[in-house]
Amino acid sequence: MNPPFPAKPRIAIVGTGALGTYYGARLAKAGHDVHFLVRTGRAGILVRGLKIKMPSMRIHVKKVQAYASCAEIGPCDLVIVAVKATANEALKKLLPPLLHEHTVVLTLQNGLGVEEPVAEMVGAKRIAGAICYIGANRTAPGVVECSFPGLMMIGEFGRPAADRTHAIAAVFNKAGLKCEAHDNLEGQRWQKLVWNVPFNGIAIAAGGITTDVIMADEGLRTLARRLMEEIVEAAAKFGHPIPQSFIELQFERTAKIGKYRPSSLVDFQEGRPVELEEIWGVPVRRAKSVGAGVPRLEMLYWLIRRKLAARKTGRKKR
Amino acid sequence: MNPPFPAKPRIAIVGTGALGTYYGARLAKAGHDVHFLVRTGRAGILVRGLKIKMPSMRIHVKKVQAYASCAEIGPCDLVIVAVKATANEALKKLLPPLLHEHTVVLTLQNGLGVEEPVAEMVGAKRIAGAICYIGANRTAPGVVECSFPGLMMIGEFGRPAADRTHAIAAVFNKAGLKCEAHDNLEGQRWQKLVWNVPFNGIAIAAGGITTDVIMADEGLRTLARRLMEEIVEAAAKFGHPIPQSFIELQFERTAKIGKYRPSSLVDFQEGRPVELEEIWGVPVRRAKSVGAGVPRLEMLYWLIRRKLAARKTGRKKR
Repeated sequence: MNPPFPAKPRIAIVGTGALGTYYGARLAKAGHDVHFLVRTGRAGILVRGLKIKMPSMRIHVKKVQAYASCAEIGPCDLVIVAVKATANEALKKLLPPLLHEHTVVLTLQNGLGVEEPVAEMVGAKRIAGAICYIGANRTAPGVVECSFPGLMMIGEFGRPAADRTHAIAAVFNKAGLKCEAHDNLEGQRWQKLVWNVPFNGIAIAAGGITTDVIMADEGLRTLARRLMEEIVEAAAKFGHPIPQSFIELQFERTAKIGKYRPSSLVDFQEGRPVELEEIWGVPVRRAKSVGAGVPRLEMLYWLIRRKLAARKTGRKKR
Repeated sequence: MNPPFPAKPRIAIVGTGALGTYYGARLAKAGHDVHFLVRTGRAGILVRGLKIKMPSMRIHVKKVQAYASCAEIGPCDLVIVAVKATANEALKKLLPPLLHEHTVVLTLQNGLGVEEPVAEMVGAKRIAGAICYIGANRTAPGVVECSFPGLMMIGEFGRPAADRTHAIAAVFNKAGLKCEAHDNLEGQRWQKLVWNVPFNGIAIAAGGITTDVIMADEGLRTLARRLMEEIVEAAAKFGHPIPQSFIELQFERTAKIGKYRPSSLVDFQEGRPVELEEIWGVPVRRAKSVGAGVPRLEMLYWLIRRKLAARKTGRKKR
C-alpha cells in the first residue's frame, strides 16, 4: 500500500510557460517546496523572481528554486508536467530523475490522449491529469498575466479519484488555487473538447478570427454547434454523457466573453506548436473507432493540419 | 410552332470576359454575325480587335461589332450570357432589348441554379444552358489566352435537347468549337460540380493552394473524395446517377494537370466575385431539401463565405 500523500510535498514543475509559472509561483508563495526546471531565461528568473499579475492582486516570488536540469532537482513527491504534448519527446529524458517510488506525475497537458504517452514513460499508476480552465499568458520569462484564474479539475488516469487525488486537490486549494478532484478525468477531457474543438479550430481554419466573429457569422456559429454535437455523440459512445444544456452553456458563455483569441490561434499566429493531435486528431480517431460520425471534426482536423504544414513551409522559405 | 433555328443566326454576346471573348471571337472568325456588348475597353477593341492565343494557333478578329448598350445591338436569334451569375442584377436590364419572339438565351454561367434567375427575366422557354469545359484567361480587354479549348455541353432548361439545341450545337461545331447537345443539362451540371466543389472549394478554404498541394495532402485528398461522394449522393436523389468511375477519373485527370489554380481561387485572389452560391450554396440547399447528407459541403460553403466576407471587410479598411 502507498503511504499517504504528504501535506507538504516536494514539487517539481517541468516547463515554465504560462501554466507552469502560474501554478508554481502560487504554490511557492503559499510556502511549498517548489523546484522549477527552467530552460530559457533562468538567469533572469534567479535575479528577478516570478511575477504574477492577476485582476485582484499581484504576486512576486523573489527567491525561486530554478534549475537547468532535472538531475539537479532530484526526486519529488509531485511532478507537474507543464510542457505541451508537442514537447513529449524531450519529456522522456526529463522525467526519470524526478521520480521516487511514490511520485505522482500530474500532467496539465491539453486535449485527449495526453496521459497515455506520459504513462508510457513513467508507468500508468503514477499518472494523474488536470484540466485547467484558466486564462493566462506568459509575457516574458517568469512573468505571467492571469486574466481569469478559473478552476482546475484533477483526476486519475483510468481510475476514479483516490486519496492522493484529494490530497493534491487540497494542496492546490490551500494555496488559493481552486481545484476539484473528479472521478472521471476522461469524461472531463471530452467535455472540455466541446468548446475547444470548435472555437480553437474554426478560429484557425477560417483564417485567424476571434470568437466574436464566429458568433456573429450564422454559418460558423451553426458549424460550431454541429461540431459540439459530434463531440457529444462520440463522448456518449465512450460512456461519457454530456447534456444538451452543456452546449447551450458554451454559447452563452462565449457570447459574454466577446472578442477572444482562443489559445490555439494565439499559438498558431505566434509560430508556436499547436496541439493538433490532442485537440482534433485523437478525438477524430477515437470517435471513428467506435463508429461515431464526425465528418466536420475530421474536415476541421485536415484543414488545420494543412495550415500548420503551410506555416512550416513558409518558415523554411525565409 | 417555332420556326427552325437559323443556320446563320444573329448572335449577341453579353459579357466580354474570357468566355464571351473566346466564343464570340471564334464565331465571328467563322463568319457569323456576332455583336458584343462591351462595357470596359470598347475603344481599344474597336481599334485592335480581338486576339485569341491558343496552343495550336492564334486568331485575330480585326473588325469587331462592339456596342456600349444592348439597345444598339437590338434583337438577336441567339443571346449568349457570358457574365457571371454574380452580375445577374445588371442582366435584368441588359437582356430585354436583345429579344425577339424566338430568341434563344444561352447561359454559360457556372454552377447550379443558374438558369432559374435568367428564366425569371426572359421566360423559361427561351433558356438553354451550356457547361464549358475550357481553360481560358482574359489577359487584357479583347485578349484571351486559351490553354485548353475543351468541350461545351449544351442542353435545354428542364427539357431534353430540342431541334434548336442541335442547331446551336451545329453552329458551334462548324466554327471549330467542340459542342455536344445533351438531354439532361441539370445532370451535367451536377456532374461538373463533382470536380468544382472540392477543388475550387478546398483551394480557397485551405488558404489559397493549388491542385497539386491538395493531391499531395492525404487529408485534403480524402476530403475531396468525401465531397465528391456527397455530390454524387445528392445528384442521385435528384435522378442524376453518376458512376463511381467518374470520381476516379477526376483524380486521374487532376493528378495529370499538376500545379493548377482553380478558377474560383483565381477570382478570389484577384478580388473578383466568386460564384459562392452557384457552386456551393445552391447545391447545399438542394441536397438538404431531398434529405441528402452534405455535412462537408455545407461546412465548406460556410468557410468560403466567411473568407469572402473577410475579403470585403479587408478592402473597406484600406
